[in-house]
Amino acid sequence: MINNKLLKKDLKEKRELVNITLDRFLPRKDEYPKDIHKAMRHTLFAGGKRLRPYLMLRTFELFSDEVSKVQPLAAAIEMLHTFTLIHDDLPAIDDDDYRRGKKTCHVVYGDDLALLAGDSLLCYAFDLLTTIEMSDENKIKMIRELASESGDQGLILGQMKDILSEGKDITKEELDFIHRNKTGRLIKLAIRFGCYAAEASKEDTKNMEIFGEKIGLAFQIVDDILDIEGSSKKMGKTVGKDIKVSKATYPAVYGLDKSKEMATKLVNEAKKLLEKYGDKAEMLSLLTDFILLREF
Amino acid sequence: MINNKLLKKDLKEKRELVNITLDRFLPRKDEYPKDIHKAMRHTLFAGGKRLRPYLMLRTFELFSDEVSKVQPLAAAIEMLHTFTLIHDDLPAIDDDDYRRGKKTCHVVYGDDLALLAGDSLLCYAFDLLTTIEMSDENKIKMIRELASESGDQGLILGQMKDILSEGKDITKEELDFIHRNKTGRLIKLAIRFGCYAAEASKEDTKNMEIFGEKIGLAFQIVDDILDIEGSSKKMGKTVGKDIKVSKATYPAVYGLDKSKEMATKLVNEAKKLLEKYGDKAEMLSLLTDFILLREF
Repeated sequence: MINNKLLKKDLKEKRELVNITLDRFLPRKDEYPKDIHKAMRHTLFAGGKRLRPYLMLRTFELFSDEVSKVQPLAAAIEMLHTFTLIHDDLPAIDDDDYRRGKKTCHVVYGDDLALLAGDSLLCYAFDLLTTIEMSDENKIKMIRELASESGDQGLILGQMKDILSEGKDITKEELDFIHRNKTGRLIKLAIRFGCYAAEASKEDTKNMEIFGEKIGLAFQIVDDILDIEGSSKKMGKTVGKDIKVSKATYPAVYGLDKSKEMATKLVNEAKKLLEKYGDKAEMLSLLTDFILLREF
Repeated sequence: MINNKLLKKDLKEKRELVNITLDRFLPRKDEYPKDIHKAMRHTLFAGGKRLRPYLMLRTFELFSDEVSKVQPLAAAIEMLHTFTLIHDDLPAIDDDDYRRGKKTCHVVYGDDLALLAGDSLLCYAFDLLTTIEMSDENKIKMIRELASESGDQGLILGQMKDILSEGKDITKEELDFIHRNKTGRLIKLAIRFGCYAAEASKEDTKNMEIFGEKIGLAFQIVDDILDIEGSSKKMGKTVGKDIKVSKATYPAVYGLDKSKEMATKLVNEAKKLLEKYGDKAEMLSLLTDFILLREF
Protein backbone atom coordinates (compact mmCIF):
# COMPACT_ATOMS: atom_id res chain seq x y z
CA MET A 1 0.00 0.00 0.00
CA ILE A 2 1.28 3.41 -0.92
CA ASN A 3 0.28 5.81 1.82
CA ASN A 4 1.42 8.96 0.14
CA LYS A 5 -1.57 10.33 -1.77
CA LEU A 6 0.49 12.44 -4.15
CA LEU A 7 2.69 9.54 -5.24
CA LYS A 8 -0.26 7.19 -5.47
CA LYS A 9 -2.08 9.59 -7.78
CA ASP A 10 1.00 10.18 -9.89
CA LEU A 11 1.77 6.47 -10.27
CA LYS A 12 -1.84 5.84 -11.26
CA GLU A 13 -1.86 8.63 -13.84
CA LYS A 14 1.38 7.51 -15.43
CA ARG A 15 0.33 3.88 -15.31
CA GLU A 16 -2.86 4.70 -17.17
CA LEU A 17 -0.88 6.64 -19.74
CA VAL A 18 1.50 3.70 -20.23
CA ASN A 19 -1.43 1.30 -20.53
CA ILE A 20 -3.07 3.46 -23.18
CA THR A 21 0.24 3.65 -25.06
CA LEU A 22 0.79 -0.11 -24.86
CA ASP A 23 -2.73 -0.72 -26.05
CA ARG A 24 -2.18 1.63 -28.98
CA PHE A 25 1.06 0.00 -30.09
CA LEU A 26 0.00 -3.62 -29.71
CA PRO A 27 -2.11 -5.46 -32.24
CA ARG A 28 -5.72 -5.97 -31.14
CA LYS A 29 -6.74 -9.21 -29.41
CA ASP A 30 -8.97 -10.04 -32.37
CA GLU A 31 -6.30 -9.18 -34.93
CA TYR A 32 -4.80 -12.05 -36.85
CA PRO A 33 -3.05 -14.16 -35.47
CA LYS A 34 -5.37 -13.78 -32.50
CA ASP A 35 -3.84 -16.28 -30.09
CA ILE A 36 -0.40 -14.76 -30.02
CA HIS A 37 -1.84 -11.30 -29.46
CA LYS A 38 -4.03 -12.57 -26.66
CA ALA A 39 -0.98 -14.23 -25.09
CA MET A 40 1.10 -11.04 -25.38
CA ARG A 41 -1.66 -8.91 -23.84
CA HIS A 42 -2.35 -11.44 -21.12
CA THR A 43 0.88 -10.78 -19.22
CA LEU A 44 1.27 -7.20 -20.39
CA PHE A 45 -2.11 -6.22 -18.95
CA ALA A 46 -2.08 -8.42 -15.87
CA GLY A 47 -1.86 -5.42 -13.56
CA GLY A 48 1.83 -4.57 -13.59
CA LYS A 49 3.01 -1.55 -11.62
CA ARG A 50 4.71 -0.04 -14.70
CA LEU A 51 7.60 0.85 -12.41
CA ARG A 52 10.21 0.88 -15.19
CA PRO A 53 8.30 3.15 -17.59
CA TYR A 54 7.41 5.35 -14.60
CA LEU A 55 11.07 5.73 -13.71
CA MET A 56 11.91 6.55 -17.31
CA LEU A 57 9.11 9.13 -17.60
CA ARG A 58 9.87 10.79 -14.27
CA THR A 59 13.59 10.91 -15.06
CA PHE A 60 12.81 12.38 -18.48
CA GLU A 61 10.71 15.08 -16.81
CA LEU A 62 13.66 16.21 -14.71
CA PHE A 63 15.20 17.52 -17.93
CA SER A 64 12.39 18.02 -20.45
CA ASP A 65 8.70 18.90 -20.64
CA GLU A 66 7.86 17.14 -23.89
CA VAL A 67 6.75 13.92 -22.29
CA SER A 68 4.44 12.94 -25.17
CA LYS A 69 7.57 12.35 -27.30
CA VAL A 70 8.66 9.39 -25.21
CA GLN A 71 5.47 7.36 -25.03
CA PRO A 72 6.80 4.71 -27.46
CA LEU A 73 9.90 4.44 -25.27
CA ALA A 74 7.76 3.82 -22.18
CA ALA A 75 5.93 1.07 -24.05
CA ALA A 76 9.18 -0.46 -25.32
CA ILE A 77 10.62 -0.66 -21.79
CA GLU A 78 7.51 -2.37 -20.43
CA MET A 79 7.45 -4.80 -23.37
CA LEU A 80 11.09 -5.72 -22.77
CA HIS A 81 10.31 -6.28 -19.10
CA THR A 82 7.29 -8.43 -19.94
CA PHE A 83 9.34 -10.46 -22.43
CA THR A 84 11.70 -11.41 -19.60
CA LEU A 85 8.78 -12.26 -17.28
CA ILE A 86 7.07 -14.54 -19.81
CA HIS A 87 10.26 -16.42 -20.67
CA ASP A 88 11.37 -16.64 -17.02
CA ASP A 89 8.02 -18.12 -16.00
CA LEU A 90 8.20 -20.91 -18.61
CA PRO A 91 8.66 -24.48 -17.33
CA ALA A 92 12.07 -24.45 -19.04
CA ILE A 93 13.25 -21.84 -16.52
CA ASP A 94 11.33 -20.93 -13.33
CA ASP A 95 8.13 -22.90 -13.99
CA ASP A 96 5.94 -20.32 -12.27
CA ASP A 97 2.17 -20.65 -12.42
CA TYR A 98 1.26 -17.22 -11.08
CA ARG A 99 2.49 -13.73 -11.86
CA ARG A 100 0.96 -10.39 -10.94
CA GLY A 101 -1.88 -12.33 -9.30
CA LYS A 102 -2.90 -14.05 -12.52
CA LYS A 103 -2.05 -17.34 -14.14
CA THR A 104 1.16 -17.05 -16.13
CA CYS A 105 1.12 -16.82 -19.91
CA HIS A 106 2.11 -20.42 -20.61
CA VAL A 107 -0.44 -21.80 -18.14
CA VAL A 108 -3.23 -20.09 -20.06
CA TYR A 109 -1.91 -20.19 -23.65
CA GLY A 110 0.54 -23.09 -23.64
CA ASP A 111 4.34 -23.16 -23.65
CA ASP A 112 4.55 -22.67 -27.42
CA LEU A 113 2.50 -19.49 -27.60
CA ALA A 114 4.11 -18.07 -24.45
CA LEU A 115 7.56 -18.63 -25.92
CA LEU A 116 6.58 -16.90 -29.17
CA ALA A 117 4.71 -14.12 -27.36
CA GLY A 118 7.92 -13.36 -25.45
CA ASP A 119 9.98 -13.36 -28.65
CA SER A 120 7.43 -11.11 -30.25
CA LEU A 121 7.45 -8.58 -27.42
CA LEU A 122 11.24 -8.36 -27.66
CA CYS A 123 10.91 -7.58 -31.38
CA TYR A 124 8.23 -4.96 -30.67
CA ALA A 125 10.51 -3.25 -28.16
CA PHE A 126 13.18 -2.78 -30.85
CA ASP A 127 10.57 -1.74 -33.38
CA LEU A 128 9.20 0.97 -31.08
CA LEU A 129 12.65 2.40 -30.44
CA THR A 130 12.94 3.21 -34.14
CA THR A 131 9.78 5.36 -33.95
CA ILE A 132 10.79 7.76 -31.16
CA GLU A 133 11.09 11.41 -32.06
CA MET A 134 14.80 12.02 -31.62
CA SER A 135 18.01 12.16 -33.62
CA ASP A 136 18.95 9.03 -35.61
CA GLU A 137 22.24 8.95 -33.74
CA ASN A 138 20.48 8.84 -30.36
CA LYS A 139 18.08 6.20 -31.60
CA ILE A 140 20.90 3.95 -32.71
CA LYS A 141 22.67 4.42 -29.38
CA MET A 142 19.51 3.34 -27.56
CA ILE A 143 18.93 0.35 -29.85
CA ARG A 144 22.51 -0.78 -29.29
CA GLU A 145 22.12 -0.46 -25.52
CA LEU A 146 18.75 -2.20 -25.54
CA ALA A 147 20.36 -5.10 -27.39
CA SER A 148 23.46 -5.36 -25.23
CA GLU A 149 21.60 -4.77 -21.96
CA SER A 150 19.10 -7.47 -22.86
CA GLY A 151 21.49 -10.03 -24.29
CA ASP A 152 23.96 -12.48 -22.83
CA GLN A 153 25.86 -9.69 -21.12
CA GLY A 154 22.73 -8.19 -19.54
CA LEU A 155 19.30 -9.43 -18.49
CA ILE A 156 19.93 -12.87 -19.94
CA LEU A 157 23.24 -13.11 -18.12
CA GLY A 158 21.53 -12.40 -14.80
CA GLN A 159 18.87 -14.96 -15.54
CA MET A 160 21.39 -17.57 -16.51
CA LYS A 161 23.55 -17.10 -13.45
CA ASP A 162 20.39 -17.43 -11.39
CA ILE A 163 19.73 -20.84 -12.95
CA LEU A 164 23.29 -22.01 -12.47
CA SER A 165 23.42 -21.01 -8.82
CA GLU A 166 20.18 -22.77 -7.86
CA GLY A 167 20.79 -25.29 -5.11
CA LYS A 168 24.39 -24.18 -4.67
CA ASP A 169 26.03 -22.04 -2.02
CA ILE A 170 26.95 -18.76 -3.63
CA THR A 171 29.30 -16.04 -2.54
CA LYS A 172 28.25 -12.48 -1.73
CA GLU A 173 29.97 -11.30 -4.89
CA GLU A 174 27.99 -13.76 -6.99
CA LEU A 175 24.72 -12.72 -5.37
CA ASP A 176 25.48 -9.08 -6.01
CA PHE A 177 26.37 -9.89 -9.60
CA ILE A 178 23.14 -11.80 -10.23
CA HIS A 179 20.94 -9.06 -8.88
CA ARG A 180 22.75 -6.27 -10.58
CA ASN A 181 22.20 -8.05 -13.87
CA LYS A 182 18.71 -9.31 -13.27
CA THR A 183 16.54 -6.62 -11.75
CA GLY A 184 18.90 -3.70 -11.47
CA ARG A 185 19.91 -3.68 -15.11
CA LEU A 186 16.53 -2.82 -16.59
CA ILE A 187 15.74 -0.26 -13.90
CA LYS A 188 19.05 1.44 -14.62
CA LEU A 189 18.42 1.23 -18.36
CA ALA A 190 14.97 2.83 -17.99
CA ILE A 191 16.48 5.72 -16.05
CA ARG A 192 19.38 6.13 -18.49
CA PHE A 193 16.99 6.09 -21.46
CA GLY A 194 14.98 8.83 -19.77
CA CYS A 195 18.19 10.89 -19.65
CA TYR A 196 19.11 10.15 -23.29
CA ALA A 197 15.64 10.97 -24.56
CA ALA A 198 15.64 14.29 -22.72
CA GLU A 199 19.22 14.99 -23.83
CA ALA A 200 20.38 15.40 -20.24
CA SER A 201 24.03 16.32 -19.65
CA LYS A 202 26.61 13.57 -19.20
CA GLU A 203 26.98 14.56 -15.57
CA ASP A 204 23.24 14.25 -14.90
CA THR A 205 23.08 10.98 -16.83
CA LYS A 206 25.85 9.56 -14.67
CA ASN A 207 24.21 10.84 -11.50
CA MET A 208 20.88 9.29 -12.41
CA GLU A 209 22.54 6.02 -13.40
CA ILE A 210 23.99 5.72 -9.93
CA PHE A 211 20.56 6.54 -8.53
CA GLY A 212 19.16 3.74 -10.70
CA GLU A 213 21.77 1.28 -9.53
CA LYS A 214 21.01 1.99 -5.89
CA ILE A 215 17.24 1.75 -6.12
CA GLY A 216 17.49 -1.32 -8.37
CA LEU A 217 19.51 -3.13 -5.75
CA ALA A 218 17.26 -1.90 -2.91
CA PHE A 219 14.22 -3.05 -4.85
CA GLN A 220 15.69 -6.52 -5.30
CA ILE A 221 16.67 -6.86 -1.65
CA VAL A 222 13.16 -5.87 -0.56
CA ASP A 223 11.76 -8.33 -3.11
CA ASP A 224 13.83 -11.10 -1.51
CA ILE A 225 12.66 -10.03 1.96
CA LEU A 226 9.03 -9.96 0.87
CA ASP A 227 9.41 -13.42 -0.58
CA ILE A 228 10.00 -14.57 3.00
CA GLU A 229 7.77 -12.17 4.93
CA GLY A 230 5.05 -11.32 2.43
CA SER A 231 1.83 -13.16 1.90
CA SER A 232 1.05 -14.91 -1.35
CA LYS A 233 -2.13 -12.88 -1.76
CA LYS A 234 -0.46 -9.50 -1.58
CA MET A 235 2.46 -10.46 -3.78
CA GLY A 236 0.29 -12.06 -6.42
CA LYS A 237 2.85 -14.75 -7.02
CA THR A 238 3.97 -17.95 -5.35
CA VAL A 239 5.69 -16.94 -2.11
CA GLY A 240 8.48 -18.83 -0.42
CA LYS A 241 9.50 -20.30 -3.76
CA ASP A 242 12.96 -18.74 -3.68
CA ILE A 243 13.79 -20.52 -0.43
CA LYS A 244 12.32 -23.82 -1.55
CA VAL A 245 14.61 -24.06 -4.54
CA SER A 246 17.40 -22.43 -2.53
CA LYS A 247 17.93 -19.57 -4.90
CA ALA A 248 20.40 -16.79 -4.41
CA THR A 249 18.66 -14.25 -2.17
CA TYR A 250 19.89 -11.49 0.14
CA PRO A 251 18.27 -12.84 3.31
CA ALA A 252 19.78 -16.27 2.59
CA VAL A 253 23.26 -14.81 2.28
CA TYR A 254 23.16 -11.87 4.74
CA GLY A 255 20.26 -12.69 7.05
CA LEU A 256 17.02 -10.74 7.33
CA ASP A 257 18.16 -7.88 9.59
CA LYS A 258 21.31 -7.08 7.68
CA SER A 259 19.31 -7.19 4.42
CA LYS A 260 16.84 -4.62 5.73
CA GLU A 261 19.68 -2.43 6.89
CA MET A 262 21.31 -2.59 3.45
CA ALA A 263 18.08 -1.66 1.67
CA THR A 264 17.59 1.34 3.96
CA LYS A 265 21.12 2.56 3.38
CA LEU A 266 20.74 2.28 -0.40
CA VAL A 267 17.45 4.19 -0.33
CA ASN A 268 18.95 7.04 1.68
CA GLU A 269 21.95 7.29 -0.63
CA ALA A 270 19.65 7.26 -3.67
CA LYS A 271 17.51 10.08 -2.29
CA LYS A 272 20.62 12.18 -1.72
CA LEU A 273 21.41 11.98 -5.43
CA LEU A 274 18.03 13.54 -6.23
CA GLU A 275 18.50 16.59 -4.03
CA LYS A 276 20.08 18.70 -6.79
CA TYR A 277 16.86 18.53 -8.84
CA GLY A 278 14.73 20.08 -6.07
CA ASP A 279 10.95 19.88 -6.41
CA LYS A 280 11.16 18.29 -9.84
CA ALA A 281 12.40 15.10 -8.22
CA GLU A 282 9.67 14.97 -5.58
CA MET A 283 7.90 11.97 -7.05
CA LEU A 284 11.11 10.04 -7.62
CA SER A 285 12.06 10.72 -4.03
CA LEU A 286 8.68 9.56 -2.72
CA LEU A 287 8.96 6.46 -4.89
CA THR A 288 12.39 5.72 -3.48
CA ASP A 289 10.94 5.85 0.05
CA PHE A 290 8.16 3.56 -1.07
CA ILE A 291 10.62 0.79 -1.94
CA LEU A 292 11.07 0.19 1.78
CA LEU A 293 7.37 0.46 2.61
CA ARG A 294 5.82 -1.69 -0.06
CA GLU A 295 4.14 -4.90 0.91
CA PHE A 296 3.63 -6.27 -2.57
CA MET B 1 25.36 -32.66 -53.61
CA ILE B 2 26.20 -29.62 -55.63
CA ASN B 3 27.61 -30.78 -58.93
CA ASN B 4 28.57 -27.42 -60.24
CA LYS B 5 32.18 -26.86 -59.21
CA LEU B 6 32.04 -23.08 -59.51
CA LEU B 7 29.03 -22.75 -57.25
CA LYS B 8 30.40 -25.27 -54.81
CA LYS B 9 33.63 -23.31 -54.48
CA ASP B 10 31.81 -20.01 -54.15
CA LEU B 11 29.43 -21.30 -51.50
CA LYS B 12 32.35 -22.74 -49.57
CA GLU B 13 34.33 -19.49 -49.74
CA LYS B 14 31.43 -17.37 -48.59
CA ARG B 15 30.49 -19.88 -45.91
CA GLU B 16 34.00 -19.73 -44.49
CA LEU B 17 33.87 -15.94 -44.54
CA VAL B 18 30.55 -15.97 -42.70
CA ASN B 19 31.90 -18.46 -40.17
CA ILE B 20 34.92 -16.29 -39.49
CA THR B 21 32.66 -13.26 -39.08
CA LEU B 22 30.31 -15.10 -36.73
CA ASP B 23 33.23 -16.32 -34.71
CA ARG B 24 34.57 -12.79 -34.46
CA PHE B 25 31.30 -11.26 -33.30
CA LEU B 26 30.34 -13.93 -30.80
CA PRO B 27 31.76 -14.19 -27.31
CA ARG B 28 34.30 -16.99 -26.89
CA LYS B 29 33.20 -20.38 -25.58
CA ASP B 30 35.30 -19.86 -22.49
CA GLU B 31 34.06 -16.32 -21.94
CA TYR B 32 31.80 -15.73 -18.99
CA PRO B 33 28.98 -16.92 -18.86
CA LYS B 34 30.44 -19.95 -20.62
CA ASP B 35 27.39 -22.18 -20.86
CA ILE B 36 25.23 -19.74 -22.75
CA HIS B 37 28.03 -19.03 -25.21
CA LYS B 38 28.61 -22.74 -25.74
CA ALA B 39 24.88 -23.18 -26.34
CA MET B 40 24.78 -20.29 -28.84
CA ARG B 41 27.78 -21.59 -30.73
CA HIS B 42 26.50 -25.17 -30.69
CA THR B 43 23.69 -24.55 -33.17
CA LEU B 44 25.38 -21.67 -34.95
CA PHE B 45 28.39 -23.83 -35.85
CA ALA B 46 26.58 -27.09 -36.44
CA GLY B 47 27.36 -27.04 -40.15
CA GLY B 48 24.69 -24.75 -41.55
CA LYS B 49 24.74 -23.95 -45.26
CA ARG B 50 24.75 -20.18 -44.57
CA LEU B 51 22.24 -19.85 -47.40
CA ARG B 52 20.69 -16.63 -46.12
CA PRO B 53 23.96 -14.73 -45.64
CA TYR B 54 25.12 -16.09 -49.00
CA LEU B 55 22.03 -14.69 -50.70
CA MET B 56 22.55 -11.34 -49.00
CA LEU B 57 26.23 -11.19 -49.95
CA ARG B 58 25.67 -12.25 -53.56
CA THR B 59 22.78 -9.80 -53.94
CA PHE B 60 24.93 -7.05 -52.43
CA GLU B 61 27.65 -7.83 -55.00
CA LEU B 62 25.24 -7.24 -57.86
CA PHE B 63 25.34 -3.56 -56.92
CA SER B 64 28.52 -2.95 -54.92
CA ASP B 65 32.08 -4.17 -54.56
CA GLU B 66 32.67 -3.25 -50.94
CA VAL B 67 31.66 -6.61 -49.54
CA SER B 68 33.76 -6.25 -46.38
CA LYS B 69 31.33 -3.53 -45.22
CA VAL B 70 28.48 -5.99 -44.84
CA GLN B 71 30.12 -8.76 -42.83
CA PRO B 72 28.23 -7.80 -39.64
CA LEU B 73 25.01 -7.93 -41.63
CA ALA B 74 25.80 -11.45 -42.84
CA ALA B 75 26.41 -12.50 -39.23
CA ALA B 76 23.20 -10.81 -38.04
CA ILE B 77 21.10 -12.65 -40.63
CA GLU B 78 22.55 -16.02 -39.67
CA MET B 79 22.06 -15.29 -35.97
CA LEU B 80 18.43 -14.39 -36.55
CA HIS B 81 17.96 -17.61 -38.50
CA THR B 82 19.63 -19.65 -35.76
CA PHE B 83 17.48 -17.96 -33.10
CA THR B 84 14.38 -19.26 -34.92
CA LEU B 85 15.90 -22.75 -35.23
CA ILE B 86 16.78 -23.04 -31.55
CA HIS B 87 13.36 -21.86 -30.37
CA ASP B 88 11.49 -23.96 -32.96
CA ASP B 89 13.35 -27.09 -31.88
CA LEU B 90 12.41 -26.66 -28.20
CA PRO B 91 9.98 -29.19 -26.69
CA ALA B 92 7.51 -26.29 -26.30
CA ILE B 93 7.24 -26.11 -30.12
CA ASP B 94 8.57 -28.78 -32.49
CA ASP B 95 10.44 -30.92 -29.95
CA ASP B 96 13.17 -31.85 -32.43
CA ASP B 97 16.20 -33.79 -31.24
CA TYR B 98 18.36 -33.38 -34.34
CA ARG B 99 19.22 -30.41 -36.51
CA ARG B 100 21.95 -30.06 -39.11
CA GLY B 101 23.02 -33.62 -38.23
CA LYS B 102 23.76 -32.77 -34.61
CA LYS B 103 21.78 -32.96 -31.41
CA THR B 104 19.68 -29.84 -30.98
CA CYS B 105 20.68 -27.11 -28.56
CA HIS B 106 18.21 -28.01 -25.79
CA VAL B 107 19.13 -31.71 -25.95
CA VAL B 108 22.75 -30.85 -25.20
CA TYR B 109 22.40 -27.77 -22.98
CA GLY B 110 18.89 -28.08 -21.53
CA ASP B 111 15.68 -26.22 -22.31
CA ASP B 112 16.59 -23.26 -20.13
CA LEU B 113 19.92 -22.47 -21.76
CA ALA B 114 18.56 -23.13 -25.25
CA LEU B 115 15.71 -20.69 -24.64
CA LEU B 116 18.12 -18.01 -23.40
CA ALA B 117 20.66 -18.74 -26.15
CA GLY B 118 17.91 -18.09 -28.70
CA ASP B 119 16.90 -14.84 -26.99
CA SER B 120 20.51 -13.81 -26.86
CA LEU B 121 21.11 -14.44 -30.57
CA LEU B 122 18.10 -12.29 -31.42
CA CYS B 123 19.58 -9.46 -29.33
CA TYR B 124 22.97 -9.91 -31.03
CA ALA B 125 21.34 -9.62 -34.44
CA PHE B 126 19.94 -6.20 -33.54
CA ASP B 127 23.21 -5.19 -31.94
CA LEU B 128 25.18 -6.05 -35.08
CA LEU B 129 22.86 -4.03 -37.30
CA THR B 130 23.85 -0.91 -35.38
CA THR B 131 27.51 -1.48 -36.29
CA ILE B 132 27.23 -1.66 -40.09
CA GLU B 133 28.99 1.04 -42.08
CA MET B 134 26.08 2.88 -43.65
CA SER B 135 23.91 5.93 -43.10
CA ASP B 136 22.02 6.13 -39.78
CA GLU B 137 18.80 6.42 -41.74
CA ASN B 138 19.45 3.17 -43.59
CA LYS B 139 20.44 1.44 -40.37
CA ILE B 140 17.20 2.42 -38.67
CA LYS B 141 15.20 1.24 -41.69
CA MET B 142 16.90 -2.15 -41.46
CA ILE B 143 16.44 -2.41 -37.69
CA ARG B 144 12.74 -1.61 -38.10
CA GLU B 145 12.38 -4.26 -40.81
CA LEU B 146 14.35 -6.84 -38.83
CA ALA B 147 11.98 -6.26 -35.90
CA SER B 148 8.77 -6.38 -37.90
CA GLU B 149 9.87 -9.25 -40.13
CA SER B 150 10.86 -11.28 -37.06
CA GLY B 151 7.89 -10.45 -34.84
CA ASP B 152 4.28 -11.52 -34.71
CA GLN B 153 3.67 -10.30 -38.25
CA GLY B 154 6.68 -12.16 -39.65
CA LEU B 155 8.72 -15.23 -38.75
CA ILE B 156 6.82 -15.71 -35.50
CA LEU B 157 3.51 -15.46 -37.32
CA GLY B 158 4.53 -18.24 -39.69
CA GLN B 159 5.69 -20.39 -36.80
CA MET B 160 2.49 -19.83 -34.89
CA LYS B 161 0.25 -20.67 -37.79
CA ASP B 162 2.26 -23.83 -38.23
CA ILE B 163 1.50 -24.84 -34.66
CA LEU B 164 -2.18 -24.05 -34.97
CA SER B 165 -2.60 -25.98 -38.17
CA GLU B 166 -0.97 -29.17 -36.86
CA GLY B 167 -3.34 -32.09 -37.11
CA LYS B 168 -5.93 -30.04 -39.01
CA ASP B 169 -6.83 -29.95 -42.68
CA ILE B 170 -5.61 -26.67 -44.04
CA THR B 171 -6.50 -24.83 -47.20
CA LYS B 172 -4.06 -24.06 -50.01
CA GLU B 173 -4.21 -20.39 -49.05
CA GLU B 174 -3.28 -21.19 -45.46
CA LEU B 175 -0.38 -23.39 -46.57
CA ASP B 176 0.91 -20.67 -48.84
CA PHE B 177 0.56 -18.16 -46.03
CA ILE B 178 2.48 -20.31 -43.55
CA HIS B 179 5.37 -20.91 -45.89
CA ARG B 180 5.61 -17.36 -47.07
CA ASN B 181 5.93 -16.28 -43.46
CA LYS B 182 8.11 -19.08 -42.22
CA THR B 183 10.92 -19.81 -44.65
CA GLY B 184 10.27 -17.28 -47.40
CA ARG B 185 10.28 -14.26 -45.17
CA LEU B 186 13.88 -14.47 -43.99
CA ILE B 187 15.19 -15.38 -47.44
CA LYS B 188 13.42 -12.35 -48.88
CA LEU B 189 14.69 -10.18 -46.04
CA ALA B 190 18.29 -11.31 -46.63
CA ILE B 191 18.01 -10.39 -50.29
CA ARG B 192 16.33 -7.05 -49.57
CA PHE B 193 18.99 -6.19 -46.96
CA GLY B 194 21.65 -6.93 -49.58
CA CYS B 195 19.96 -4.34 -51.80
CA TYR B 196 19.64 -1.75 -49.02
CA ALA B 197 23.24 -2.16 -47.94
CA ALA B 198 24.46 -1.70 -51.51
CA GLU B 199 22.06 1.21 -52.02
CA ALA B 200 20.48 -0.49 -55.03
CA SER B 201 17.73 1.39 -56.88
CA LYS B 202 14.10 0.91 -55.85
CA GLU B 203 13.44 -0.91 -59.09
CA ASP B 204 16.28 -3.37 -58.51
CA THR B 205 15.26 -3.84 -54.89
CA LYS B 206 11.72 -4.68 -55.98
CA ASN B 207 13.00 -7.05 -58.68
CA MET B 208 15.25 -8.89 -56.24
CA GLU B 209 12.48 -9.07 -53.66
CA ILE B 210 10.30 -10.92 -56.15
CA PHE B 211 13.28 -13.16 -56.91
CA GLY B 212 13.56 -13.81 -53.16
CA GLU B 213 9.89 -14.62 -52.83
CA LYS B 214 10.06 -17.15 -55.64
CA ILE B 215 13.17 -18.98 -54.47
CA GLY B 216 11.95 -18.89 -50.87
CA LEU B 217 8.78 -20.68 -51.83
CA ALA B 218 10.61 -23.11 -54.13
CA PHE B 219 13.06 -23.88 -51.32
CA GLN B 220 10.23 -24.65 -48.93
CA ILE B 221 8.38 -26.87 -51.40
CA VAL B 222 11.57 -28.86 -52.05
CA ASP B 223 12.12 -29.07 -48.28
CA ASP B 224 8.67 -30.60 -47.90
CA ILE B 225 9.36 -33.04 -50.77
CA LEU B 226 12.71 -34.03 -49.26
CA ASP B 227 11.04 -34.65 -45.95
CA ILE B 228 9.15 -37.44 -47.70
CA GLU B 229 11.75 -38.62 -50.19
CA GLY B 230 15.02 -37.80 -48.48
CA SER B 231 16.95 -39.97 -46.11
CA SER B 232 17.48 -39.01 -42.51
CA LYS B 233 21.24 -39.27 -42.91
CA LYS B 234 21.48 -36.80 -45.77
CA MET B 235 19.06 -34.31 -44.26
CA GLY B 236 20.69 -34.40 -40.85
CA LYS B 237 17.34 -34.10 -39.16
CA THR B 238 14.43 -36.36 -38.29
CA VAL B 239 12.77 -37.23 -41.59
CA GLY B 240 9.09 -38.02 -42.07
CA LYS B 241 8.29 -35.98 -38.97
CA ASP B 242 6.14 -33.53 -40.88
CA ILE B 243 3.84 -36.29 -42.06
CA LYS B 244 3.70 -37.99 -38.68
CA VAL B 245 2.34 -34.92 -36.96
CA SER B 246 0.31 -34.09 -40.11
CA LYS B 247 1.82 -30.67 -40.62
CA ALA B 248 1.01 -28.32 -43.41
CA THR B 249 3.21 -29.41 -46.34
CA TYR B 250 2.99 -28.94 -50.11
CA PRO B 251 2.99 -32.65 -50.97
CA ALA B 252 0.20 -33.19 -48.41
CA VAL B 253 -1.94 -30.50 -50.01
CA TYR B 254 -0.98 -30.72 -53.71
CA GLY B 255 0.51 -34.20 -54.07
CA LEU B 256 4.15 -34.97 -54.90
CA ASP B 257 4.07 -34.48 -58.68
CA LYS B 258 2.26 -31.18 -58.63
CA SER B 259 4.60 -29.95 -55.88
CA LYS B 260 7.66 -30.74 -58.03
CA GLU B 261 6.09 -28.98 -60.98
CA MET B 262 5.42 -25.89 -58.87
CA ALA B 263 8.99 -25.77 -57.60
CA THR B 264 10.37 -26.03 -61.15
CA LYS B 265 8.13 -23.22 -62.38
CA LEU B 266 9.18 -20.94 -59.51
CA VAL B 267 12.86 -21.63 -60.15
CA ASN B 268 12.53 -20.78 -63.85
CA GLU B 269 10.68 -17.57 -63.11
CA ALA B 270 13.29 -16.61 -60.51
CA LYS B 271 16.16 -17.16 -62.94
CA LYS B 272 14.46 -14.91 -65.48
CA LEU B 273 14.53 -12.05 -62.98
CA LEU B 274 18.33 -12.36 -62.76
CA GLU B 275 18.93 -12.04 -66.51
CA LYS B 276 19.27 -8.26 -66.44
CA TYR B 277 22.36 -8.53 -64.22
CA GLY B 278 24.28 -10.67 -66.69
CA ASP B 279 27.44 -12.42 -65.50
CA LYS B 280 27.27 -10.78 -62.08
CA ALA B 281 24.28 -12.95 -61.26
CA GLU B 282 25.90 -16.21 -62.36
CA MET B 283 26.24 -17.64 -58.87
CA LEU B 284 22.72 -16.66 -57.84
CA SER B 285 21.46 -18.32 -61.00
CA LEU B 286 23.42 -21.51 -60.33
CA LEU B 287 22.15 -21.50 -56.75
CA THR B 288 18.58 -21.16 -57.96
CA ASP B 289 19.05 -24.24 -60.14
CA PHE B 290 20.53 -26.02 -57.17
CA ILE B 291 17.29 -25.67 -55.17
CA LEU B 292 15.76 -28.35 -57.41
CA LEU B 293 18.81 -30.61 -57.34
CA ARG B 294 19.68 -30.63 -53.67
CA GLU B 295 19.30 -33.81 -51.71
CA PHE B 296 19.86 -32.38 -48.26
